[in-house]
Amino acid sequence: MPQTDNVLTEQELFIAGVARELAVFLDSKRDVLTAISPDTLVLLDSVRTLVTGGKRLRALMCYWGWRGAGGKADSSEIVSAGVALELFQAAALIHDDIIDGSDIRRGGPSVHRRFSLLHTTNRWSLDAERFGHAAAILTGDLCLSFSEEVLASIGRPTAAGTRARKVFDLMRTEVMAGQYLDILEEVSGPARPVETAVQRAQDIIRYKSAKYSTEHPLVLGGALAGADEELLAGYSAFALPLGEAFQLRDDLLGVFGDPATTGKPAGDDLREGKRTVLVGLTLAAAGEREARFVDERLGCQELGDAEIERIRAIIVESGALAEAETLIEAYSAKSFAALDSLDVPDEAAASLRALATAAVRRKS
Amino acid sequence: MPQTDNVLTEQELFIAGVARELAVFLDSKRDVLTAISPDTLVLLDSVRTLVTGGKRLRALMCYWGWRGAGGKADSSEIVSAGVALELFQAAALIHDDIIDGSDIRRGGPSVHRRFSLLHTTNRWSLDAERFGHAAAILTGDLCLSFSEEVLASIGRPTAAGTRARKVFDLMRTEVMAGQYLDILEEVSGPARPVETAVQRAQDIIRYKSAKYSTEHPLVLGGALAGADEELLAGYSAFALPLGEAFQLRDDLLGVFGDPATTGKPAGDDLREGKRTVLVGLTLAAAGEREARFVDERLGCQELGDAEIERIRAIIVESGALAEAETLIEAYSAKSFAALDSLDVPDEAAASLRALATAAVRRKS
Repeated sequence: MPQTDNVLTEQELFIAGVARELAVFLDSKRDVLTAISPDTLVLLDSVRTLVTGGKRLRALMCYWGWRGAGGKADSSEIVSAGVALELFQAAALIHDDIIDGSDIRRGGPSVHRRFSLLHTTNRWSLDAERFGHAAAILTGDLCLSFSEEVLASIGRPTAAGTRARKVFDLMRTEVMAGQYLDILEEVSGPARPVETAVQRAQDIIRYKSAKYSTEHPLVLGGALAGADEELLAGYSAFALPLGEAFQLRDDLLGVFGDPATTGKPAGDDLREGKRTVLVGLTLAAAGEREARFVDERLGCQELGDAEIERIRAIIVESGALAEAETLIEAYSAKSFAALDSLDVPDEAAASLRALATAAVRRKS
Repeated sequence: MPQTDNVLTEQELFIAGVARELAVFLDSKRDVLTAISPDTLVLLDSVRTLVTGGKRLRALMCYWGWRGAGGKADSSEIVSAGVALELFQAAALIHDDIIDGSDIRRGGPSVHRRFSLLHTTNRWSLDAERFGHAAAILTGDLCLSFSEEVLASIGRPTAAGTRARKVFDLMRTEVMAGQYLDILEEVSGPARPVETAVQRAQDIIRYKSAKYSTEHPLVLGGALAGADEELLAGYSAFALPLGEAFQLRDDLLGVFGDPATTGKPAGDDLREGKRTVLVGLTLAAAGEREARFVDERLGCQELGDAEIERIRAIIVESGALAEAETLIEAYSAKSFAALDSLDVPDEAAASLRALATAAVRRKS
């Protein structure tokens, strides 16, 4: 079912509401930080820059979860939930970029890089990179606290509110544990059995990304609207495979994506040493010599363009890329089938379908 | 007024309650993390180790703030608030140790160091130190989220609950902004006017430590018990100068403390480049040659024992140490005077007096 103009307008109104509340919230923090010291306002600017862009995928999943469960279109509660999710995502990105050593985010400097540039520009003492990391750790902590503050402001002491709180708490634990599994696999992967590499990578994306990008936001919205457990289970059945397809697409873009649209350098994931499902499939399918080359070169900070090109060729020629596309198709099919059985109003179903299609077909 | 045995027992009961709820909470997270992957349990062990020790200063301030405002002795709410504060403190320490490059905490390896040792022991690939930092960033994030989860579980949707929430939110923002000012001063201090160094250092300790170690916990406890604004203002008048004295004492211990009691290497703060009030006083009071030596050597990672000894001698001979002790006395006097005017039950006043005395006289 195609989206009608009405629905687009409603979604746009929600997104505008999220942007407005984000701005109001951050402005209120401007006063708090100014009282401490104007020197600290740069922390806020870093957060503001990050939350200004982005696809708002999580906020939108949350919104349609709410609407699908009977929540009203013009409600401040769901806007606050969207803001909390966007702030959480920003916090995760700030720390993720330190962890991955990513100097670029959405085409501009990442937060730790902004701070090290500030250090260099001002000719400050001691080490610029160290200062950048330290300042970005604190900015991420601040942003994580902001996220929580906004969620708590919803303040529904009802059973539905408690269910939503549980979703939010579980989401945070799973993301952080999943990210740990991700860095653990980077360092311990080469010593672990290659036969289980794909399974391990699938576990990682489930926790660090899939549940958190789609399932938890959708269920959070539903829970806030008081959805029953049956509907929430249906939401999970739709959104979890969608999130897995979403992250697999992300992995492909991290290796083959166009820097002009992804806003990240070409082959960045290879330099970071991400041991994705795509890498697992490659190690299993490639010849021994090729597999060893990939295994050894992953995560080398000084990986050159020619080596990135060779790894890409191995991924394609081993058939791993095609296998990954097949997996994305399979996850998508499972997700869309579950969507068809969801008992939600037509406009919510149509909007979720549009979001899902964009998530698995995206180029950035 | 001396503490009676009754009061000691009540305080011990509270501390035992906090330890018990911490254990129960972390056990509940053990199940969540095991479901994700047993590999992630090491995150929890790191948190557990940190929250097992410590002086529980913040939890105790919170408790007596609660009791002073008429809260009941055997209440689960105040135990939860204490647990939330202890978890927040653990999260702050984990990230602080990364930022300061502190490999030792309470005589054992700090969290990032634990993870880099895990990497080395297992002979994993890539860089052990980088893995350690990344894993500790995530552990701190997890711990920060745990802290919030416990606070939210108190769930009082009353005016008193809202006031407590505001205190908690402000505390987090101030700590993170204050820590930023701290690292900013490390790198920008040498280029800023020496005449304002003491003032800048005082601003830093107010936000990164004083308010958060004593004032906010005490006010949080009072707010949870429904204290009126007059009592909360009295709490602040007592606890803020106390916190400032507490942190000044901390700064002195960071330079002159006995490693056997502080659990940190001798002169660690000098190697980290902390520009404390003590350092500001020294730069102002020492001769030009001595001041330049201190200014240039602060923050050098390879600062040797002889250099640390020379800096200590300059601090003593310039009279800065004596000035710092005088400041501690002045803050303490202000704090105890405010305590005398507090309208709280005798046992709360006596317990706050004992806590305050320990905080400014401590050796570790």
